[in-house]
Amino acid sequence: MPSTVVPPRPQPGPGPIVVPAGLAGVAVTETTIGHVLGVEGFYHYRQYSAVDLAQARPVEDVWHLLFTGDLPDRARHEEFTARVAALRQIPDDVLAALPAIAAAAPAPLDGLRTALSLAGAAQGLRPLWDLDEPARLRDALLVCAQVPTLLTALYRLGQGLEPIPPRDDLSYAANYLFMLTGAEPRPEHARAIERYLVSTIDHGFNASTFTARVIASTGADVAACVVGGIGALSGPLHGGAPSRALDALDAIGTPDRIDAWVRDRIEHGDRIMGFGHPVYRTEDPRSRMLRATAEELGGDLVAFAVQVERRVLDLLAELKPGRELHTNVEFYAGVVMELVGLPRAMFTPTFASSRVIGWCAHVLEQARDRKIIRPDATYVGPPPPQPVPPLG
Amino acid sequence: MPSTVVPPRPQPGPGPIVVPAGLAGVAVTETTIGHVLGVEGFYHYRQYSAVDLAQARPVEDVWHLLFTGDLPDRARHEEFTARVAALRQIPDDVLAALPAIAAAAPAPLDGLRTALSLAGAAQGLRPLWDLDEPARLRDALLVCAQVPTLLTALYRLGQGLEPIPPRDDLSYAANYLFMLTGAEPRPEHARAIERYLVSTIDHGFNASTFTARVIASTGADVAACVVGGIGALSGPLHGGAPSRALDALDAIGTPDRIDAWVRDRIEHGDRIMGFGHPVYRTEDPRSRMLRATAEELGGDLVAFAVQVERRVLDLLAELKPGRELHTNVEFYAGVVMELVGLPRAMFTPTFASSRVIGWCAHVLEQARDRKIIRPDATYVGPPPPQPVPPLG
Repeated sequence: MPSTVVPPRPQPGPGPIVVPAGLAGVAVTETTIGHVLGVEGFYHYRQYSAVDLAQARPVEDVWHLLFTGDLPDRARHEEFTARVAALRQIPDDVLAALPAIAAAAPAPLDGLRTALSLAGAAQGLRPLWDLDEPARLRDALLVCAQVPTLLTALYRLGQGLEPIPPRDDLSYAANYLFMLTGAEPRPEHARAIERYLVSTIDHGFNASTFTARVIASTGADVAACVVGGIGALSGPLHGGAPSRALDALDAIGTPDRIDAWVRDRIEHGDRIMGFGHPVYRTEDPRSRMLRATAEELGGDLVAFAVQVERRVLDLLAELKPGRELHTNVEFYAGVVMELVGLPRAMFTPTFASSRVIGWCAHVLEQARDRKIIRPDATYVGPPPPQPVPPLG
Repeated sequence: MPSTVVPPRPQPGPGPIVVPAGLAGVAVTETTIGHVLGVEGFYHYRQYSAVDLAQARPVEDVWHLLFTGDLPDRARHEEFTARVAALRQIPDDVLAALPAIAAAAPAPLDGLRTALSLAGAAQGLRPLWDLDEPARLRDALLVCAQVPTLLTALYRLGQGLEPIPPRDDLSYAANYLFMLTGAEPRPEHARAIERYLVSTIDHGFNASTFTARVIASTGADVAACVVGGIGALSGPLHGGAPSRALDALDAIGTPDRIDAWVRDRIEHGDRIMGFGHPVYRTEDPRSRMLRATAEELGGDLVAFAVQVERRVLDLLAELKPGRELHTNVEFYAGVVMELVGLPRAMFTPTFASSRVIGWCAHVLEQARDRKIIRPDATYVGPPPPQPVPPLG
């Protein structure tokens, strides 16, 4: 559990302060949103265990918690759920542009980046700097509510299908699956994906969250912040591509091929997707929860995944001793998504659908700071000024 | 001039490293692109004074310098100029989407954010992580070459006019003005705007540049990085809105009203746009160069601007003693842009047209690092874990 003693924040001095590469271990600000305790294998949203929240509460309640600081009671739950459900519809001019975006941007995150950029502008989102707290909250709710609608519409258009309008009588999680297929999902499927969504809403100052905060620090509008976050999330070094772990399960195929596949990957120095995390030194707590969720759904895929996981961990311990490579969130997230019937192209977009809530919580917190993030760097090139040779 | 002694970069320790708010004075990485020396009032690209470059070289040469490290000779200049001119055309499917984007996004930077996001996806830009150096360079050149085409097309569409296709026989600066008006600009106008463009290509680790680098650190594609940078640039706390300074000149109107206007602003605690900079403790070197450029163009506006500047500086020294508020780049940038006939709505977009080259130089440098930027934060909320109350 974190210490309650907060060291004083230093003031800039005459010379630059040099910090570790990638800002690893550098506390860039204070936050009350949550924290990841890598050694303990624990992460929390506000004062609650995120895994406990995923097991006990719907997306809407955790969204409310992250945006306002409070877990809603029943009355606030009903009110907030109705409020965000009413924001799911996207305006007609944005809807009209989606076929062109889907055609030009086959990668779902690229399509979302473009469509959300358009939706923000079309709905007149204004700079955070120009808005009071209620207006900022409204813009952030709107962006979060519309991301699933945009993503599922773009996916269906890419498949040659008509988008399915959102339903405001379904929960966030059930409506998400509904907009993909047009059928009301089985309750256990909605509940399984909901656990995934809640457990991935926030996770420290990862690169996409930090991107959203740097943009927010300029006072830009919420869409600008989230569009930046989507860009960072699209990077291969940013976690959150559960399809990669499932592709690995496919590649292995049968239990008798596990050893050969894993040994081959390790010998070639290739990463084994679904294992290892930059922060956790233990099993990823999301992995444990999602394994249980997958096992509740049951079936051959789950049994095979459990077999693969055990064998990979054994072989990693044997071949990479001391490396502490544990199962991360991607492994069972992929299994859960496959079991509830999500198409694989929607695995990472589904991650974006939950993480946007975390990004926006951070944007709202950063906006209260009114201090631009503007670091320095150490210049290590040839010393200036050299005379500029004329073009000649 | 900077010291050539580079302190060693520390390794992450067991506890977080707490740094000043907004990362002020924190050297987050090493760079050979350039540096801003705030106390000395000097900034450089590679080993050359940026102001010297603006006076001696076209945009293309400085672009080449920032991307490759070398100032081109005549042969390389011809080759590079032809190469980037050939990349200005945007594909038909992106062009076809621009009217809808211009209609939905009246703010030019919001339109650019959307259009560039689409153009990147439509042209199949791939993650930096998956590309070798020549392929990354090609993507970065493409993005930089197309930003002026997209911006001028969106502006004209917003005015009810047809976009004007780029000409590959004009320099970057002349083609920029040509695409706005359809007329070949006067050489002194192209040269004046070129000085502005070169002098604003790069300027340290400002928020938009840092945003682009954080996104690049995930291995995302160049468009994702630049789209994030555009979002940060659109924030009111990010410098680079020369129209604000010109709006102030309009509001003052005549020399006899300078004192009353300035005193009124200061008494109300309002910022005087065009004065003060987060880094410079002297006159902004860009301001000095652009004042000379404006004076070469001449006219009543320049004479008035010089009068206003002198009086503002006197009054600031009197009313805000010790605050070191000097003229920044926005003040004379606005004057120069007005003199060359740029519409005021295109002032900040023109800044984006040059700064995109700097962002991309940083993206290319960051991509060589292959280290994700993932900071930490200090959690200061109520201690976890508290039991999660059921919804009830």
